[in-house]
Amino acid sequence: MRLLEEKINTDGKVLSENVLKVDSFLNHQIDPQLMLEIGKEFARIFAGEGITKIVTIESSGIAPAVMAGLYMNVPVIFARKRKSLTLVDDLLTASVHSFTKNETNEISISKKYVNENDRVLIIDDFLANGEAALGLVDIVQKSRATVVGIGIVIEKSFQHGAQKLKDLGLRVESLARIASLSNGKVSFINENVEELIK
Amino acid sequence: MRLLEEKINTDGKVLSENVLKVDSFLNHQIDPQLMLEIGKEFARIFAGEGITKIVTIESSGIAPAVMAGLYMNVPVIFARKRKSLTLVDDLLTASVHSFTKNETNEISISKKYVNENDRVLIIDDFLANGEAALGLVDIVQKSRATVVGIGIVIEKSFQHGAQKLKDLGLRVESLARIASLSNGKVSFINENVEELIK
Repeated sequence: MRLLEEKINTDGKVLSENVLKVDSFLNHQIDPQLMLEIGKEFARIFAGEGITKIVTIESSGIAPAVMAGLYMNVPVIFARKRKSLTLVDDLLTASVHSFTKNETNEISISKKYVNENDRVLIIDDFLANGEAALGLVDIVQKSRATVVGIGIVIEKSFQHGAQKLKDLGLRVESLARIASLSNGKVSFINENVEELIK
Repeated sequence: MRLLEEKINTDGKVLSENVLKVDSFLNHQIDPQLMLEIGKEFARIFAGEGITKIVTIESSGIAPAVMAGLYMNVPVIFARKRKSLTLVDDLLTASVHSFTKNETNEISISKKYVNENDRVLIIDDFLANGEAALGLVDIVQKSRATVVGIGIVIEKSFQHGAQKLKDLGLRVESLARIASLSNGKVSFINENVEELIK
């Protein structure tokens, strides 16, 4: 998505070979107009998939997910993160390890809102090692709903999350795919060039 | 806001005299169309105030705040909640006690995104004792920005948060104001009747 790549180029900050900071428009400060365009793009990509629910995770997934829900006219459920959960009967849970924060959280959604008749699109802001997305897939599959696909705002393609999800047979669509953060510079995977050299 | 009151009546659950559960459209599952209408209403109410930023708090404030930001064409910053924060120089912080969860969190925003030239609208999903809103006011005032007002989706008017904020001279605008949750029933403060009997 060109608009998003431009925004990353102008406002993103490369902190290391692994870390891209985008807290000026996605993770802390949010650009609502950009989120609307992102939601529209997810709706375009997953049109015709018969999606009935979007599942995301607090907090940075909420804005893009709600905008996608607006265009797709479906409810959005955000999974909650807790250090530990007292066992509650009506929750579906999974453990998610964050390598960035070096902590493991329990994530959960209520059984009430996703069931076997649902076709679910999972949306998240970042895809790196895939821990959060795999946790969301786990929860949705526990509800017996169908995971139609995973929509990601920014994929760090030099890490292994996308491949892990694809290995499970899942459709992964990322709006910006980063090939490398070397030398303080963001290099995107250029889809057009990839098509040409196939 | 009539649409919101109707939604609370049909989908809200009164769990006790103090607790209204709205996790089917606001706190866990989110209704994007309703959030859009809520954002539009905040934009209408605060039109002409010269607002430059919206500040909210994760996670349930994000959806209504982003929709308001969309209509008002301003960025949204969401404060993060942590149990404890390692001291970081570029953060503005406040302590917020949650009576519901009986825990105190540190909330914070980055200094980068709010400054003395900003006119800030604070948005949150619920107003009860006012702890979260007061914490947000504290943070925004520490940045030397002007707090233009506080926009609340659901105010529990039988608790003291709104009054505390008004006592500070702040403008509080709540889209639904609940007079009581007694007998398992939601009673709203009827603005029209209030006008009539003035």
